[in-house]
Amino acid sequence: MNDILVLGAGRVGSAIVRDLAQDFAVTAADADADSLKRLESLCAAETELLDLRNESEFRTLVGRHDLIIGALPGHLGFQSLRVVLEERKPTVDISFFEEDPFRLDELARSNNVTAVVDCGVAPGLCNILLADAGRQIEVEKYRCLVGGLPVKRPWPFEYKAPFSPIDVIEEYLRPARQVVNGEIEIRPALSDVEEVDFPEVGVLEAFTTDGLRTLLKTTRTPFMQEKTLRYPGHAELMRVLREAGFFSKDPLDVGGNSIRPIDLTSRLLFPLWQLGDDEEEFTVMLVEMEGLRDGERSRLRYLLYDRFDPNTRISSMARTTGYTCCAVARLIANGRFSRKGICPPEYVGREEGCFREVIQFLESRGVSLRKDTG
Amino acid sequence: MNDILVLGAGRVGSAIVRDLAQDFAVTAADADADSLKRLESLCAAETELLDLRNESEFRTLVGRHDLIIGALPGHLGFQSLRVVLEERKPTVDISFFEEDPFRLDELARSNNVTAVVDCGVAPGLCNILLADAGRQIEVEKYRCLVGGLPVKRPWPFEYKAPFSPIDVIEEYLRPARQVVNGEIEIRPALSDVEEVDFPEVGVLEAFTTDGLRTLLKTTRTPFMQEKTLRYPGHAELMRVLREAGFFSKDPLDVGGNSIRPIDLTSRLLFPLWQLGDDEEEFTVMLVEMEGLRDGERSRLRYLLYDRFDPNTRISSMARTTGYTCCAVARLIANGRFSRKGICPPEYVGREEGCFREVIQFLESRGVSLRKDTG
Repeated sequence: MNDILVLGAGRVGSAIVRDLAQDFAVTAADADADSLKRLESLCAAETELLDLRNESEFRTLVGRHDLIIGALPGHLGFQSLRVVLEERKPTVDISFFEEDPFRLDELARSNNVTAVVDCGVAPGLCNILLADAGRQIEVEKYRCLVGGLPVKRPWPFEYKAPFSPIDVIEEYLRPARQVVNGEIEIRPALSDVEEVDFPEVGVLEAFTTDGLRTLLKTTRTPFMQEKTLRYPGHAELMRVLREAGFFSKDPLDVGGNSIRPIDLTSRLLFPLWQLGDDEEEFTVMLVEMEGLRDGERSRLRYLLYDRFDPNTRISSMARTTGYTCCAVARLIANGRFSRKGICPPEYVGREEGCFREVIQFLESRGVSLRKDTG
Repeated sequence: MNDILVLGAGRVGSAIVRDLAQDFAVTAADADADSLKRLESLCAAETELLDLRNESEFRTLVGRHDLIIGALPGHLGFQSLRVVLEERKPTVDISFFEEDPFRLDELARSNNVTAVVDCGVAPGLCNILLADAGRQIEVEKYRCLVGGLPVKRPWPFEYKAPFSPIDVIEEYLRPARQVVNGEIEIRPALSDVEEVDFPEVGVLEAFTTDGLRTLLKTTRTPFMQEKTLRYPGHAELMRVLREAGFFSKDPLDVGGNSIRPIDLTSRLLFPLWQLGDDEEEFTVMLVEMEGLRDGERSRLRYLLYDRFDPNTRISSMARTTGYTCCAVARLIANGRFSRKGICPPEYVGREEGCFREVIQFLESRGVSLRKDTG
């Protein structure tokens, strides 16, 4: 498998293309010609203007390549993954679509293809860490705190979105599933706000979001929690907007026009949340696990802290998300990971060799994890 | 003058009608038939369905009465006051329109009519207090903190609007004029937030709004400041909405529809800000003045704290605003205040007898001021 197609040349997709193009023949496909032109100037990838509405053309494009990377916006992810699987192509997806990926498991299995989904940093790397931890301890508690944030903190939201801002708002809307004593508990997004001090960046706030996703199906750890990190105060403002109706998708009559409040809110917030191409940002992820090792209570803790790279001008969110995806894409391309069907990242982490290669690859790209045990 | 017309039968207008109808022949006019029906059941007033778009009918209605009270929403106030003055009718206005009332001074003078404007609690009563203070001390500093608030504090805005909510947002938009060392200084609305403790209600926050209005023209006090009181945190949320563009009047294209963000915001916030008919609320106003009395530095401080009346079910904001207006209407009806032209409330306060009658009338309605000197 030497010919890779990357669907989506946004911030993360472009980082993936630039990385894979060092070792593979890569084609980048996107609906935006400017994004493709920029990529051409940065690496040796081929480019294709993508029109997903033309499905037969899309199928032909997919059919011409050996391995497909899905880096499209969330709302396009599921449907394009289905097409890729129908075309019997192995794939790694980081579109983080809302639909349950296992709905495509039978299709993937019957077509005998490997499809790793949710393969970014979180979900993604954190799932891989949890799977590996299972080899060392009997994990009883898993908790992941993760966020991508700008270094400069513009009032009032102190946030810039390194990926589609609409997907950020979706995170603030979706009820958050957590596991408490083996049972799934639903919490509202943006709740259970707590402050956590990170030596590298100071105090951040952590709040519930629906980030466990496939782990809810694949993993029997009796306590699992995922929280998003922002600068303190962000969750309160988002709750205010949500509860006052500004995120509502129900149309309202405003002076004779039918308007979904979320559409106006998006128009207003997105310019404020736009992360500049050279704007410094960082990713922080804390994965805490606890359980029994040889009958003794044991803790395992990973801290990832990664920053914008001023040399490549690749954002930290693109680095951590994209390089995890690249690591797994390489495992598939090199025949090291070949499990068929829908494979969430924890399936990759369950194979010890794969786990090691992912971590080593990330290290080679300067994305390093600090591990504490105790 | 025994025949009084009250334009506007909203919360405040209705309180005025009910009070004046005890001693005068009163006609209440409003565009809303239900409001009028409710009034008919509460007092002896006549009612007239009002259609301001039909100007000749409006003129005829005005012409049939001796004294006109303007209690219309702010955006209708100026134009209807002009008509009242053209019809040569004395009037008291509490619509708090944005336009400069002195633009109608020549019309009022040439038609030889008395027109007291801004005649509520603030502006209104506070102007009257400042004018009276001028008889006791040489006022150097004047400061008025005022707000109407619900007893229950619903998250997140902890606010209910006892008058048109759109006028509340207008207050948060208009640059606030203050007087510093004799010069007008413009501050953004919602700025200079400070917390002030009121024994009756606890801590409130005070922030700049454009409340000095006519005092800027009529009064030479070298330091004058007006601030609005809310529960702590309100100003920050309003600043967030304003600065993020949710109060903007510039149309935005949202999915092919041209929408003014403020119109959608109004649709979302107004139900949340709706003060129920029987919802307990209070008004608090602190007027602080400082200056020389016989060469010695002296302070004069008035505190008004008034609550919803569960017997009459008249809100405190309607009581304090409406009864100040009624007090002045009675002065005019009884020939005790007869200055011609546009008269802001400070002109009423400058006449010692009028000042006393206003305070006595308010006392008779249970609206009392605590005065401290020192």
